[in-house]
Amino acid sequence: MAKELKELTNRDENYSQWYNDLVVKAGLAEYSAVRGCMVIKPYGYAIWENMHDALDKMFKDTGHENAYFPLFIPKSFFSREASHVEGFAKECAVVTHYRLMNDPDGKGVVVDPDAKLEEELIVRPTSETIIWNTYKGWIHSYRDLPILVNQWANVVRWEMRTRLFLRTAEFLWQEGHTAHETRQEAYDETVKMIGVYRDFAEKFMGVPVVIGRKTANERFAGAEETLTIEALMQDGKALQSGTSHFLGQNFARAFDVQFTNRSNELDYVWASSWGVSTRLIGALIMAHSDNNGLVLPPRLAPLHAVLIPIYKGEEERVAASARLQELAGELRARGLKVKIDDRDNVRSGFKFAEYELKGVPVRLALGPRDMAAGTIELARRDTLTKEIVPQEGLAERVAGLMDEIQNSIFERALAYRDEHITKVDSWDEFVRVLDEKGGFVSAHWDGTTETELAIKEATKATIRCIPLSGADVPAGLGEAAAEIPAGLGGEDEPGACVMTGKPSERRVLFARSY
Amino acid sequence: MAKELKELTNRDENYSQWYNDLVVKAGLAEYSAVRGCMVIKPYGYAIWENMHDALDKMFKDTGHENAYFPLFIPKSFFSREASHVEGFAKECAVVTHYRLMNDPDGKGVVVDPDAKLEEELIVRPTSETIIWNTYKGWIHSYRDLPILVNQWANVVRWEMRTRLFLRTAEFLWQEGHTAHETRQEAYDETVKMIGVYRDFAEKFMGVPVVIGRKTANERFAGAEETLTIEALMQDGKALQSGTSHFLGQNFARAFDVQFTNRSNELDYVWASSWGVSTRLIGALIMAHSDNNGLVLPPRLAPLHAVLIPIYKGEEERVAASARLQELAGELRARGLKVKIDDRDNVRSGFKFAEYELKGVPVRLALGPRDMAAGTIELARRDTLTKEIVPQEGLAERVAGLMDEIQNSIFERALAYRDEHITKVDSWDEFVRVLDEKGGFVSAHWDGTTETELAIKEATKATIRCIPLSGADVPAGLGEAAAEIPAGLGGEDEPGACVMTGKPSERRVLFARSY
Repeated sequence: MAKELKELTNRDENYSQWYNDLVVKAGLAEYSAVRGCMVIKPYGYAIWENMHDALDKMFKDTGHENAYFPLFIPKSFFSREASHVEGFAKECAVVTHYRLMNDPDGKGVVVDPDAKLEEELIVRPTSETIIWNTYKGWIHSYRDLPILVNQWANVVRWEMRTRLFLRTAEFLWQEGHTAHETRQEAYDETVKMIGVYRDFAEKFMGVPVVIGRKTANERFAGAEETLTIEALMQDGKALQSGTSHFLGQNFARAFDVQFTNRSNELDYVWASSWGVSTRLIGALIMAHSDNNGLVLPPRLAPLHAVLIPIYKGEEERVAASARLQELAGELRARGLKVKIDDRDNVRSGFKFAEYELKGVPVRLALGPRDMAAGTIELARRDTLTKEIVPQEGLAERVAGLMDEIQNSIFERALAYRDEHITKVDSWDEFVRVLDEKGGFVSAHWDGTTETELAIKEATKATIRCIPLSGADVPAGLGEAAAEIPAGLGGEDEPGACVMTGKPSERRVLFARSY
Repeated sequence: MAKELKELTNRDENYSQWYNDLVVKAGLAEYSAVRGCMVIKPYGYAIWENMHDALDKMFKDTGHENAYFPLFIPKSFFSREASHVEGFAKECAVVTHYRLMNDPDGKGVVVDPDAKLEEELIVRPTSETIIWNTYKGWIHSYRDLPILVNQWANVVRWEMRTRLFLRTAEFLWQEGHTAHETRQEAYDETVKMIGVYRDFAEKFMGVPVVIGRKTANERFAGAEETLTIEALMQDGKALQSGTSHFLGQNFARAFDVQFTNRSNELDYVWASSWGVSTRLIGALIMAHSDNNGLVLPPRLAPLHAVLIPIYKGEEERVAASARLQELAGELRARGLKVKIDDRDNVRSGFKFAEYELKGVPVRLALGPRDMAAGTIELARRDTLTKEIVPQEGLAERVAGLMDEIQNSIFERALAYRDEHITKVDSWDEFVRVLDEKGGFVSAHWDGTTETELAIKEATKATIRCIPLSGADVPAGLGEAAAEIPAGLGGEDEPGACVMTGKPSERRVLFARSY
């Protein structure tokens, strides 16, 4: 077995260490010399590019355009929206000076005390403030609305405890910021975009998600309502994977953005914002991967298939590689991203392990017997199964397998998720399920922040969301592929709070989370 | 004439004001609330996306992968490479604190004095230092080489005088950073990438460029050699549009990046770096646009054609719009990006002016007479000509026009450029040509930095480049579409320095520049 694999921590022994090992050894990312900041390596970045391309197309298909706003935000902007400042302006990178000078003592460079900014600049943790300050100049009449803008950018939040992809001081994301004439239109946009995120998570990442509302306590700082998609990882913890916020008129009021409406009256503009980040790469890894390494869904995999010659001696190597070149050409003609690995300085077993580690969906190995028989060995990464198949029709077979693997990965994650939504009606059971089984716990809650915090204090579990139920599902959200199974919390059903026994209108989903 | 056009400053009266007006009024960009930082608006960002997509494909076709490195660089990193620190670490954004707190006086938020960083962080002005510090962990043997990595990112240089796109405190760019076994391989990469930039400028932007070497004085801080592409704007000023640097072993030495070579000896790694930025949008505007607004080459235009109904009354409007929908479908099927503007609240003359301002290559107007005759009015933005053409075969005609317009824009810029390279052999003529004609002045120079600076002091002209001459052109650079005409400085030819009279081996190109 290859060296890398030996060093990959067992997933069942230490999930957290397994995750970190995997990210580093599969060449996705590593920590940098700057505290809490990561380097996204080419293989990891290629996954982000695939996510970017798929999402960007979905945003454009729903009428959005991209734009770019400044990295820096004047400190005073944060104070304009009362709850926003509490949520975002505290742990942040502050630019105070704009020049260095040679150290008078001759030791490198030091900050030039004369180059102090009059007002400090904050490296954006999110861009509502600078964008709404800009929108003030763009919006005068209802004819200027809606504005449907998205930004791809880096943001910085000074996190104390960081984990690659899941929580880093700097991360990459997209943030949509839309402006509307009416409350309804802004709310519809909020709903539409959480639906886009769900579709992306399920169809591209192969990760089933629950859509729901955040409680007041977990809401975005400055929002009237936050919708979220919540995914379940293989260790039973939930991961918030994307959020869409209905901002009401809060930012329009804070930045005095008024418009003349169709009744020729001045009104404040209605807003939404929504975002997903490189955190999704963490979700992707933790939802599917195993002790052999990454398992990547074909629709986001940087490489669909790797072709490896098996040989003894130069003659066999040349012959097998030549045939693989032909087969690779046929695969590429089908739109598949493939690579031939005919390195002569490592054994084929090492290569097999390496591509398992990297999660390449299909491995094709061609040996002397295959050369004679017109066959090839095809191995699937998701099931770790292999079979001998004819070379003829290989491209069609592999192309078809991509859909099958994509689907199989999703179905497996869905089955795991559905097995891990547990209906609970007593406090003892609540605690026991969290400790012994994990996953989502569907339980009644009395609706108060006080109880929510008490439960968190007692169990480390938080309310991941209040799932949208039948009557509750806003128009435009469509059908989810991964609805919560009936009876597990996706519908209204009165009961008594699992902690206080007070009345509850419906179940909510609790979980421990990342 | 529409309001926007009236307000566009005449290009011949005040080129600088014309440029600024155009950028703002065409909706490309605007200044933000943060000093020197711009907002790139959707129409401007769409141009950048097209540039990104074309360049990214060219980089990948030449074997490069993308990655992402931290926004912040520890201050001490800059001091490691002696000339780099002088060039880059001075005017920069310095992060000194990582937390804000509520103002004890109750006035918003203030910097928390307890949250001072031990070592200040610099917002990257360019990433050689953090990247070579990272490469140290990636490179051990020649088997780890080459590394061919590119990064798309934002960077910050604290400029005192800023201009939209041309010079802003924050800008978007790509920076390639490659690592190689041998001097020759790193140099070949440097040459290859300046060739990629030239191809991009000429084939996509329609901007002819001169490739040459920078003088020691104008070289990138930390490079052994800087190659540049220099373009000429319509006001006779040059614009450095892209650079590719041969870094020798400088950064490998600074960050102690050694590898075991094929002879089993330790050696320092050889490097190149290369970049282009949103500055290219400024070059694109200034190379082609006119008093009516932008002129965009079809290969980078966000929109290829706009379709406008001409009508009196609702019935005619509905009929014309319906026919335009059909035609738009045919155009889209050809891969053209088109839009129908059937707004009823503005006159068609206003629309015509608006799309001229925005530089849409083709305008199609359909009136009642056209409806009857099966014709449509086709107007070209580059020549401002129009003709009545049959609706039948329209998509093919417009698709063909895209190539014709792309080519015509380039040829016009090339003719202007070639007319504005002037061979000069006396100081008086040197000064007169710079003052009266502008453009590149091809003159002899004695090769000293002293003379170079004296000429700059006297005339504000700088040496834009030492053009590559026949024998001099490195392998792998291929044929330029826009070679400097014979006799104007693209070849060796000894002479006497235009200022000092001292001997010179060959002519160099001077110009005033952005």
